Amino acid sequence: MGTVLRGGTVVGGGEYRADVRIDGPAIAAIGQGIAQSGDRIIEVDGCYLLPGGIDPHTHFDLDIGTTVTADDFASGTKAALAGGTTTIIDFATQAKGGTLQAALSAWQAKAAAKCFTDYGFHMAITDFNDRIACEMGELVAQGVTSFKLYMAYKHNLQVDDSVIFRTLRHSHGIGALIGFHCENGDVIDTLVQEAIKAGQTSPRYHALTRPAAAEAEAIHRVISLAEMAGAPLYIVHLSCAGAVDAVLAAKARGVRVYAETCPQYLLLDDACYEAAGFEAAKYVMSPPLRTKPDQEALWNSLRTGLLDTVATDHCSFNFHGQKELGQHDFSKIPNGGPGVEHRLALLYTYGVLPGRITLQQLVDYTATNAAKLFGLFPRKGIIAPGSDADIVVWNPKHSATILAASQTQRVDYTPYEGWHQQGQAEYVFLRGCLAAQSGKPCGEPRGEYLRRNPFPDRRENDG
Amino acid sequence: MGTVLRGGTVVGGGEYRADVRIDGPAIAAIGQGIAQSGDRIIEVDGCYLLPGGIDPHTHFDLDIGTTVTADDFASGTKAALAGGTTTIIDFATQAKGGTLQAALSAWQAKAAAKCFTDYGFHMAITDFNDRIACEMGELVAQGVTSFKLYMAYKHNLQVDDSVIFRTLRHSHGIGALIGFHCENGDVIDTLVQEAIKAGQTSPRYHALTRPAAAEAEAIHRVISLAEMAGAPLYIVHLSCAGAVDAVLAAKARGVRVYAETCPQYLLLDDACYEAAGFEAAKYVMSPPLRTKPDQEALWNSLRTGLLDTVATDHCSFNFHGQKELGQHDFSKIPNGGPGVEHRLALLYTYGVLPGRITLQQLVDYTATNAAKLFGLFPRKGIIAPGSDADIVVWNPKHSATILAASQTQRVDYTPYEGWHQQGQAEYVFLRGCLAAQSGKPCGEPRGEYLRRNPFPDRRENDG
Amino acid sequence: MGTVLRGGTVVGGGEYRADVRIDGPAIAAIGQGIAQSGDRIIEVDGCYLLPGGIDPHTHFDLDIGTTVTADDFASGTKAALAGGTTTIIDFATQAKGGTLQAALSAWQAKAAAKCFTDYGFHMAITDFNDRIACEMGELVAQGVTSFKLYMAYKHNLQVDDSVIFRTLRHSHGIGALIGFHCENGDVIDTLVQEAIKAGQTSPRYHALTRPAAAEAEAIHRVISLAEMAGAPLYIVHLSCAGAVDAVLAAKARGVRVYAETCPQYLLLDDACYEAAGFEAAKYVMSPPLRTKPDQEALWNSLRTGLLDTVATDHCSFNFHGQKELGQHDFSKIPNGGPGVEHRLALLYTYGVLPGRITLQQLVDYTATNAAKLFGLFPRKGIIAPGSDADIVVWNPKHSATILAASQTQRVDYTPYEGWHQQGQAEYVFLRGCLAAQSGKPCGEPRGEYLRRNPFPDRRENDG
Amino acid sequence: MGTVLRGGTVVGGGEYRADVRIDGPAIAAIGQGIAQSGDRIIEVDGCYLLPGGIDPHTHFDLDIGTTVTADDFASGTKAALAGGTTTIIDFATQAKGGTLQAALSAWQAKAAAKCFTDYGFHMAITDFNDRIACEMGELVAQGVTSFKLYMAYKHNLQVDDSVIFRTLRHSHGIGALIGFHCENGDVIDTLVQEAIKAGQTSPRYHALTRPAAAEAEAIHRVISLAEMAGAPLYIVHLSCAGAVDAVLAAKARGVRVYAETCPQYLLLDDACYEAAGFEAAKYVMSPPLRTKPDQEALWNSLRTGLLDTVATDHCSFNFHGQKELGQHDFSKIPNGGPGVEHRLALLYTYGVLPGRITLQQLVDYTATNAAKLFGLFPRKGIIAPGSDADIVVWNPKHSATILAASQTQRVDYTPYEGWHQQGQAEYVFLRGCLAAQSGKPCGEPRGEYLRRNPFPDRRENDG
Repeated sequence: MGTVLRGGTVVGGGEYRADVRIDGPAIAAIGQGIAQSGDRIIEVDGCYLLPGGIDPHTHFDLDIGTTVTADDFASGTKAALAGGTTTIIDFATQAKGGTLQAALSAWQAKAAAKCFTDYGFHMAITDFNDRIACEMGELVAQGVTSFKLYMAYKHNLQVDDSVIFRTLRHSHGIGALIGFHCENGDVIDTLVQEAIKAGQTSPRYHALTRPAAAEAEAIHRVISLAEMAGAPLYIVHLSCAGAVDAVLAAKARGVRVYAETCPQYLLLDDACYEAAGFEAAKYVMSPPLRTKPDQEALWNSLRTGLLDTVATDHCSFNFHGQKELGQHDFSKIPNGGPGVEHRLALLYTYGVLPGRITLQQLVDYTATNAAKLFGLFPRKGIIAPGSDADIVVWNPKHSATILAASQTQRVDYTPYEGWHQQGQAEYVFLRGCLAAQSGKPCGEPRGEYLRRNPFPDRRENDG
Repeated sequence: MGTVLRGGTVVGGGEYRADVRIDGPAIAAIGQGIAQSGDRIIEVDGCYLLPGGIDPHTHFDLDIGTTVTADDFASGTKAALAGGTTTIIDFATQAKGGTLQAALSAWQAKAAAKCFTDYGFHMAITDFNDRIACEMGELVAQGVTSFKLYMAYKHNLQVDDSVIFRTLRHSHGIGALIGFHCENGDVIDTLVQEAIKAGQTSPRYHALTRPAAAEAEAIHRVISLAEMAGAPLYIVHLSCAGAVDAVLAAKARGVRVYAETCPQYLLLDDACYEAAGFEAAKYVMSPPLRTKPDQEALWNSLRTGLLDTVATDHCSFNFHGQKELGQHDFSKIPNGGPGVEHRLALLYTYGVLPGRITLQQLVDYTATNAAKLFGLFPRKGIIAPGSDADIVVWNPKHSATILAASQTQRVDYTPYEGWHQQGQAEYVFLRGCLAAQSGKPCGEPRGEYLRRNPFPDRRENDG
Repeated sequence: MGTVLRGGTVVGGGEYRADVRIDGPAIAAIGQGIAQSGDRIIEVDGCYLLPGGIDPHTHFDLDIGTTVTADDFASGTKAALAGGTTTIIDFATQAKGGTLQAALSAWQAKAAAKCFTDYGFHMAITDFNDRIACEMGELVAQGVTSFKLYMAYKHNLQVDDSVIFRTLRHSHGIGALIGFHCENGDVIDTLVQEAIKAGQTSPRYHALTRPAAAEAEAIHRVISLAEMAGAPLYIVHLSCAGAVDAVLAAKARGVRVYAETCPQYLLLDDACYEAAGFEAAKYVMSPPLRTKPDQEALWNSLRTGLLDTVATDHCSFNFHGQKELGQHDFSKIPNGGPGVEHRLALLYTYGVLPGRITLQQLVDYTATNAAKLFGLFPRKGIIAPGSDADIVVWNPKHSATILAASQTQRVDYTPYEGWHQQGQAEYVFLRGCLAAQSGKPCGEPRGEYLRRNPFPDRRENDG
Repeated sequence: MGTVLRGGTVVGGGEYRADVRIDGPAIAAIGQGIAQSGDRIIEVDGCYLLPGGIDPHTHFDLDIGTTVTADDFASGTKAALAGGTTTIIDFATQAKGGTLQAALSAWQAKAAAKCFTDYGFHMAITDFNDRIACEMGELVAQGVTSFKLYMAYKHNLQVDDSVIFRTLRHSHGIGALIGFHCENGDVIDTLVQEAIKAGQTSPRYHALTRPAAAEAEAIHRVISLAEMAGAPLYIVHLSCAGAVDAVLAAKARGVRVYAETCPQYLLLDDACYEAAGFEAAKYVMSPPLRTKPDQEALWNSLRTGLLDTVATDHCSFNFHGQKELGQHDFSKIPNGGPGVEHRLALLYTYGVLPGRITLQQLVDYTATNAAKLFGLFPRKGIIAPGSDADIVVWNPKHSATILAASQTQRVDYTPYEGWHQQGQAEYVFLRGCLAAQSGKPCGEPRGEYLRRNPFPDRRENDG
């Protein structure tokens, strides 16, 4: 006995009216005349059927030393579901001197039995050596096929070019894709010290000490290193026009570089830092919000298919009690903001409706491409027979207002407070089970850990 | 009673194993358990199911004054079918002083009742004025939603910037997409005259008098004109790195520019012009074949998704009797070459197998993107319920050698003589009917004329 | 018996304190201890000695059909002298169907016996054919070694790419340098017609119908044509960032492209078109004034040596009675503005003093480079023994206010009305004779016609 | 009583025939009729008078741990003089943990009383901290107004981005110009280790482990850092097209970046590494020799004025006994080669004569620009009254063959063995004294230490 979603428009590889039949955890058939006797029929006329969103960039239950993120894997994945995201990939992070295996175990423990979406992990490497190189291969075998290195956060997560280059060289051949946080940490560290010394301690100095050029430089550099290493690479959270230029030039010369941006960089700008009082702390994230022309460059890139994913970098801290840790020193404000819940709604309302991107592109950027890059395709990221029945029934008629008071995310604010939202995840199915309805999660935490496939080597010679 | 293709791997928006059920002219369902009693079952295990190819650039039954192309709409579309292409879009061309309507009627007459594939027409404008502007709108209403202007062929097809700009301005709002043949005809005309005067009459001077810079310049120019006009544009047969650079830079700043290349520019190079005797005449086409670095730039662009389509510019003339018209003067050699038959096989063998592009990209470039750009999606260009059952069952195990002697194209040579071909269109369905088998067309000319949809206006302001 | 300028600082190839001895029309010696008995001594302590300015872009006594420029060769060269310019190069223009020789004779007659500065002519070609090609060589022999083609002014001065390319091909080998007015006239003509039809007739539509992209496109194009022709080229009055980008990219790949800008594009911007009433007509020139970022790009290029000359494009029309011809139709406003008088003062005050360029660069851009490009070096453009004693004694301490009421130019306004001017041409020598003092010309019209040297061919192969 | 060079052609700021009168150490006058009674007259008819060459990049008497350069300050400056260079600027290098002052004293001692040319020092910083920052200002006051940082030579001279950025920030305001050796040392170090581990120990692996991209990356990076720091910068020994592109793009946006290349990168290419046996070790230098297209890019940049200086990076080691230290391990081959003696001759023969650069540009690149950048202008770098009488009388008629056997450099080979040399330094004057004749130094070591002027701050705001 299955379930048939009847009368909707399937999006993904095209837009076409078709019924979708779910049988157990998977999609069984798509088309006309596919219902079998005994099937439950759900009428979804007027709705779009989207593959469940994949958010490849979240930070749940993250201890940053002075505090822990407001959302853990339970509240975070609940919020994800509410917004139409059925898979998240979080970042396990190696402790300095520790093993990758230990980090993975620690993060597995944080997530176990709590997740409302399926989940996987990237592994952030902070301390590379030959032993860690060996471990990378072992992790790939365990389904952790992507890694991350930080070019910023000096004296903490930052690694040098030697580690970057050696990791890239090593990734080549073991099926790993390395992601990068690209900002020149040495520059930022110097500017932050100069600012603090000069008594410039309010939140807006967070942005002023992290210039866009520091991001563009790091992106240009890491692409060069990957090119010399003959390795593919993924760049997280592009925020500025200079970043786009660097990625684009590299794509043009055939470098396998993939790039992500986030709704906050598309929709918010540095005017936010002029907010009165300590309010600007809500927007303290890295990279910081940029200018309107930077937004335009990002939208143009999405329109023309030059970027690959739109993730959230969800890393929530309460304004009260947490952001306030930096009330007298912007460098102590916990970095990050919430976003996992509203990604689809924001892209639909402010991307698709005004014609900046197509609905097909929304699906590519929020699901399909991430599935392909991170070893989940075609199990995830597509509505196709045999794929997991992770389906979002998107009702484009529903309209609402985004409010912290009514959100599922467990944090006391949203950067989009009062914004109009058009459309809603009317039903969300996770592997065939109804997991959210009318924008609210329902049921138990049924999320499973995802062993992901290796990143495909290019068959030709990379030099 | 339908037909079920059982056990294949569907390509398009992903790659996944699924049965496909055809009911009448359309695809009814995709998935497991979709066969209905009475259905005919065709086992396609080990094969890929691709959407029927769309070739948006052919010239069949074209009278160039001194001769007529070797292939007409019958032989040309037969060859298309043989190679897995189920739709072609040819170019009707306005006579100087004539109406567009007259040109369309003339081309409709050439194609009527002869085509083995579905077909449509772009309309080439050679003589623009206010009356023609009106006609453009009428043609869009009749399903001719794309046009073409030539920046080369001085004293013949070439139009000036004024016509280009006014046509682009006018296309905006009527749902038309304008395509361009981009080479600076004034430069070429001068160089050709200089060469002839200097007694440089052999075929290789065809290439030497059409420098890559003349193409790059024209592309840069027409993109600027489109940008100022606020109109989208399509560029046919990109052949060189400078062309790629210009397109790319424009995409990066958000211009809606779409670009095509052809197998000959990906696989053949200017060494062909060093062939002994008059042999080089086989490669006289415009633009001419370029260098190996140009090929590399084109492949890089396909790999990273920066181009949109791979068409053929099929325009065949027999070497004997036709190409020989220019035996003593390269400028009299009929321009063009055959290609409609081998597009998929060449891209599969020399693109997919060595890892230069993915199979999904092959589908995008040979079918899906053309369908989207030219108003045929999702009727064509995708394997989805409700779409036309234009399906190529691609057998990757078949291997063969390309030979003029055994080709379906009605021309006495092929530029790929003796090349290895891996894979073959085992079955080709056109709107549900088996139309080719084992690389050979079967049955009657069932091709229908396609009224295409207008090009979508961007909702936001184009300035 | 000579004249010794004692105690000044010579600028040009350096800045150094030295006396300069003039003997007859030429500079005899520079240094210490060079005065000979009987020499007249002029104390110029605290002043800079600059080579007399060369303005390679003026339009004096120009009949545009509906009216004639306010300045003729007498008033125009007087104003030039007043501001420190001792040589001008004006544009003789071929009549359609006429010969170049006839045009040169006509312009020689306009200038004869009237000029207060030395003078030469570029020849503007409007109607090219084989006979004109021959004449080009003859003109070079007569000292007219530079030509000009217009890419704008459709149906009037504009030539097509064929003429451009053939002229460039021909210039190669006869020692000619071709200059270009770069704007896409077809685009502009269409936009102007659209505007007029839409009732948009006020002066600001002049700027709105001549977009910067139309200039950048034309520059990109003509550089490509020159590159294919293997010829050097000169581009007049760059006004926008896109123009700078195109020139720069070409210089980087070794194209011999030389470029000019004017003070109005460095100092005025499109806010001028918002002036009330018909006032904006004062700024109707082609190209029009651009934006502040365009100014910035031009200044950056000057600072880093990427442009070659700063000319004036002086083409003055009285606001009352002349500009007013277009009171009801911006397309009828005579194009152009005054500027020959204030070039050095503006560059000194707004370029050198704020540190945007050095004093050495001011000399390069206003004298030395033009002398080199237009066959006058080292006779003009340098303070060196043997060179013409064209010397400006620049007093940096003098300050004044620019006012139409007190200018030497014979026109009823200046775009710089009320602007502060720092520095003044205290003395101006023309071939050894004192020709202006305290910013006012003195004496008779002693200007001589200059037979200029051919443009040097590059010895290596240009392809 | 003075000396008059009679009948030559002065080059610098132009080319003009004039006599030059030397009085004591300085140039007294230039022109006609300047000889005074008692003056010694030297006929230099048919010769060019060039300002004495300035080589801002030499390494004399440099101890690299395993050996010491073949040339010390005596032999090195003798060779410089022989070739027409009258000033060298060498690199004093801070010892790790040591002071800048100590390094300067050490280098002053090496040079004292030995130099045949005038000389100055840049200071290489290897270990930056607040104390060193203070010392920088003190050194500027002592005439050491330029510094150098190494981005390569990991575990040795290499500094990280933090040091680079802080040094640049600090240079701003104290009148210092920082120069950079730009190669990504982390990449190179990894590749070298990989090569050695793989048994790839022959000299050609030196080049293969230092890819051009590693240089281009470092240049792009340091320019970004300088731009964020608001500081000017100088880049030594550009060797590849990617480097040129990065510098050019920066100049275009107004960055005050200055760049140097060397004759070896203009004239030699990576084919040298294919030399049989250990011969390739002669070309082991950093950056290594590149490809012919890289040479072309460098020549284009010189032709169009986009680079600033041509230095030598003279750092000579004998092939026998010194280069051989790396016979079994390329990473132990002392890096560097000779060049100080042949710079002018090579540029004249292979640059000026074939028309790649003008004679004026030769002067700019070998003397004038270095004088301006390094605080020696107009004392050095120009033939002008008041300037030091450092004059090269260049005889263009002399022709010779470059041979190690007859060179003045104290090293057992030259990379240009057997090359034709056209032109010779017939006489070289150093501050008025004849210091070399017919390509051979004469007389005592009269070189003086040069206290150089601070680098001028730009008056406008650098942000």
